[in-house]
Amino acid sequence: MTPMEKTLVALVGMGTVGTGVARLLLDHGDRTARHAGRTLWVQHIIVKDPTKTRDADIPTGLISTDLTRLLQDSEVKVVAHLLGGLEPARTIMLQLLESGKDVVTANKALLAEHGPELFDRARQLGRTIAFEASVGGGIPIIANISQCLAANQILSLQGILNGTSNFIITNMQEQGIRYEAALQEAQRLGYAEADPTFDVDGSDAAQKLAILAHLAFGARVHWRQIPRRGIDHIQSHDLRYASDMGFSLKLLAMARLHAAGLELHVSPTLIPKGTPLAEVRSNFNAINVVGDAVGPVFFHGQGAGQMPTASAVVADMIDVAVGRAAITFGNLKLWSKQPPRVDLRDHAHTKSKFYFRFDVADQPGVLAQIAGILGRHQISIASVHQYDRDKDLTTGTVPLVIVTHSALEHHTGLAQREIQNLEVVRTQGERLRILTTEN
Amino acid sequence: MTPMEKTLVALVGMGTVGTGVARLLLDHGDRTARHAGRTLWVQHIIVKDPTKTRDADIPTGLISTDLTRLLQDSEVKVVAHLLGGLEPARTIMLQLLESGKDVVTANKALLAEHGPELFDRARQLGRTIAFEASVGGGIPIIANISQCLAANQILSLQGILNGTSNFIITNMQEQGIRYEAALQEAQRLGYAEADPTFDVDGSDAAQKLAILAHLAFGARVHWRQIPRRGIDHIQSHDLRYASDMGFSLKLLAMARLHAAGLELHVSPTLIPKGTPLAEVRSNFNAINVVGDAVGPVFFHGQGAGQMPTASAVVADMIDVAVGRAAITFGNLKLWSKQPPRVDLRDHAHTKSKFYFRFDVADQPGVLAQIAGILGRHQISIASVHQYDRDKDLTTGTVPLVIVTHSALEHHTGLAQREIQNLEVVRTQGERLRILTTEN
Repeated sequence: MTPMEKTLVALVGMGTVGTGVARLLLDHGDRTARHAGRTLWVQHIIVKDPTKTRDADIPTGLISTDLTRLLQDSEVKVVAHLLGGLEPARTIMLQLLESGKDVVTANKALLAEHGPELFDRARQLGRTIAFEASVGGGIPIIANISQCLAANQILSLQGILNGTSNFIITNMQEQGIRYEAALQEAQRLGYAEADPTFDVDGSDAAQKLAILAHLAFGARVHWRQIPRRGIDHIQSHDLRYASDMGFSLKLLAMARLHAAGLELHVSPTLIPKGTPLAEVRSNFNAINVVGDAVGPVFFHGQGAGQMPTASAVVADMIDVAVGRAAITFGNLKLWSKQPPRVDLRDHAHTKSKFYFRFDVADQPGVLAQIAGILGRHQISIASVHQYDRDKDLTTGTVPLVIVTHSALEHHTGLAQREIQNLEVVRTQGERLRILTTEN
Repeated sequence: MTPMEKTLVALVGMGTVGTGVARLLLDHGDRTARHAGRTLWVQHIIVKDPTKTRDADIPTGLISTDLTRLLQDSEVKVVAHLLGGLEPARTIMLQLLESGKDVVTANKALLAEHGPELFDRARQLGRTIAFEASVGGGIPIIANISQCLAANQILSLQGILNGTSNFIITNMQEQGIRYEAALQEAQRLGYAEADPTFDVDGSDAAQKLAILAHLAFGARVHWRQIPRRGIDHIQSHDLRYASDMGFSLKLLAMARLHAAGLELHVSPTLIPKGTPLAEVRSNFNAINVVGDAVGPVFFHGQGAGQMPTASAVVADMIDVAVGRAAITFGNLKLWSKQPPRVDLRDHAHTKSKFYFRFDVADQPGVLAQIAGILGRHQISIASVHQYDRDKDLTTGTVPLVIVTHSALEHHTGLAQREIQNLEVVRTQGERLRILTTEN
């Protein structure tokens, strides 16, 4: 047998995911060799603190703080760039590209923020950036959209892309606990960080949606342009009322193509139980993609975590090493200066069925006032539910839930504000989108 | 703008799927161009009967019966081979390869039967065979297993791979109708062929499982070696009893890696409701893949049909045209003369929980006799249910359902035969596997 060809690779960053990548490459070289037809040989691991104890069996001499040595080592072709945050992650990625290395990354915040600059630079230099791990963790959604479904015009895409939010919401729903308690539980189990803001306010999901919208629709959108709301103000009784009506709440990243443009938003959304997305539990992620040829294709898996993310990173490293990634990257012209293929639809003009909950004075005439306002805003009512069992005995208010037929975002927002100002309405209430196949 | 590069392609066969492929290539060239960085230019469409009316707008002169002209046209690099059956499909595929063309196929029966010969020949000739459409229709399961999950040792794989069977079983379950009525409905709607034998007896699923087992585990198995049973003898009252106990029945293609070898079979299997596989309805396909790094990844979509299958074929044609498929095909050494990486586990030694139903005389002591036989075969009972409401008033028999703890296939088969021979047992009864995470 002839000795197997080697591709020299390196890791920059050795946190949770980096440790997982090192384990797969060092302990399971047979797998990568079988799929790549060559050995992926780890030549450098660059870290900030080389004295830190690590949960992987790393040969002596591999770990150092010496980024320059890696940059100058022209034998190393593929680098897994596993730094979080924006800086120095951005600068180091540019340095890697400029020193002739192809880069694999899991850093969706970096791509969402600096994608155009990084991808342009990679193209100028004839280099490749692979980023499967940046969205959906172990679910290979990037490859599926950019290659496997290439014959389709993608019509819509709905994703549960933030595992922390889904873990919290699932626990609120199944255990009937409040947001704060569910968040603490998520933090205790390591599913939420000490500062969970970007996870629970919809920012993380919006960053991932920006990447998917670019791939699937050719939309050019910065994640901050995407209308978004998180789960951090969801109240547990709304989950209960929704459940009674046959819905689960999910933090949904939604893209849908209309003649008038691309609808794009991250919203806590009620989804009919029994449909695949509604059944996504705990910290799992899922994505439903509808293509005009293939119809709906649904993907479900671990959206984060050490080994699922490492699985995606190493698959990318193999793709880069064998040359597949370069072909894909070259053809797709991601974040290039080409004009976008689709414009964003004004969020105010998107349509949905809605769930409203108002806490109202328990007296005659209240529904008439509210229905009047909805009617004036061209919102028609599908059903009304008053939850007398949840009457607040101190204030005398009862929750009133109204489900609408399809209505404009703009109109429902105006109506909500007007209704909140009624004297008989005592709290801010709630307004949630309801997912239907037609909206 | 420089004119876009062209890759000349051809179609052999213009049935349902061929028509869909022609539509995607001819009417939506912009998509393939965007993903391939080049035009896939249809140069020939070879058919048996050129006078047949077709549901696609084909330019004049493209269609002919002249296979030789295609074989001699050295400009054509990629051919979608869309013939069913074994011959002349096999001979024509060999001719295409020998004339220097890469081949894309959806014919899983051909690969399951002649895979080793065809793949060996392709390798000798430096050619590529791509076959995404052969398993799972529009679900890109081949690419996901062979590329996206390449960093994993696949531990198990459970698939609902035959849409016809799933359509029939779903209707039996949801409408409480008998197999014969559900089959007729499937035939009326075009979900089952006039001769549905291979779909409903498990052969089609076994052919697909043979391909997946090869890709995921390096198993070398002919589909006829895979123990299999279909849905053609399932009785509707077993579906009802199973449903009462919280199970859905599915025709499951199962592969699971044990230290003792690879468990591989196609079996009507009871699956706990609320799990993703149990909720796969109508003619959909689904596959759950468990990798040691990524954990479970679940795929769900249209497993057959014109446009979903065409979606997979055209994605393969793009992959072949840009050179990605050649890299994958070269590295994976599919169906090569290498020794298998895993041996099959003796089916008799596989374990599962089981569901038994016997129609027994309604008299004291029956359960004691049956329990005695089960006990002698080391099968322990988890629960017993007697369905008095379904008592047959003519014969005086009642259905007795027994759910076991985990037991050997071999033992449960022996026990079943012994119990069937009891004088108090009046019909053949039923024995079904129950899917649990540990079996």
